[in-house]
Amino acid sequence: MNIKIDDIKFDEKGLIPAIVQDYITNEILMVAYMNKESIEQTATIKEAVFWSRSRQEIWHKGSTSGDYLKVKDLILDCDLDAILLVVEMVGKSACHNGTKSCFIDPKNHQARSLLM
Amino acid sequence: MNIKIDDIKFDEKGLIPAIVQDYITNEILMVAYMNKESIEQTATIKEAVFWSRSRQEIWHKGSTSGDYLKVKDLILDCDLDAILLVVEMVGKSACHNGTKSCFIDPKNHQARSLLM
Repeated sequence: MNIKIDDIKFDEKGLIPAIVQDYITNEILMVAYMNKESIEQTATIKEAVFWSRSRQEIWHKGSTSGDYLKVKDLILDCDLDAILLVVEMVGKSACHNGTKSCFIDPKNHQARSLLM
Repeated sequence: MNIKIDDIKFDEKGLIPAIVQDYITNEILMVAYMNKESIEQTATIKEAVFWSRSRQEIWHKGSTSGDYLKVKDLILDCDLDAILLVVEMVGKSACHNGTKSCFIDPKNHQARSLLM
């Protein structure tokens, strides 16, 4: 099965959730959203480009912070409605909070767990 | 920071994207959605319970297939609008296609890559 961007099932806002994973550790770094244009740009420049829902604009991750994410692979799930970005971090942080992962709380460097 | 379910920022449909990760390999197994009730049930029974958008009902993963997902941790991201389920697989498949991960194509056992 040869997957193309036109096969993707975007939601009613034209977006798809994008899971960002470190290609070495498999750690989940962040969850963002992509539209068709940001996926096309990501596939072209091999760096993560998202759609910022808060700013309603294309967001080339790292263009302000320098913390670019080099994209090793771009993988769709079985329903073609979630996308996995396998990335190499250029900087130390994927999260705007300064932590490597958005799933780590910068205050105590632990996960924000609902169970613990 | 002590996180509670009431802190979660659900979308306009009352849902949050849920990323499911194997606790041993860190592999991403699937992406699904949860509402408040499914998170409460998950936290209680320590097995993954989602909200099925197609069936519009609570979906206790594995109740039909036997492929339950034991939940080791339930972690929120910095924006409190994405949730990570760290799980132990009971069966061999997390995906309804019979593959371990929904990001693996059952036809050729490879990732559905947009780049390769």
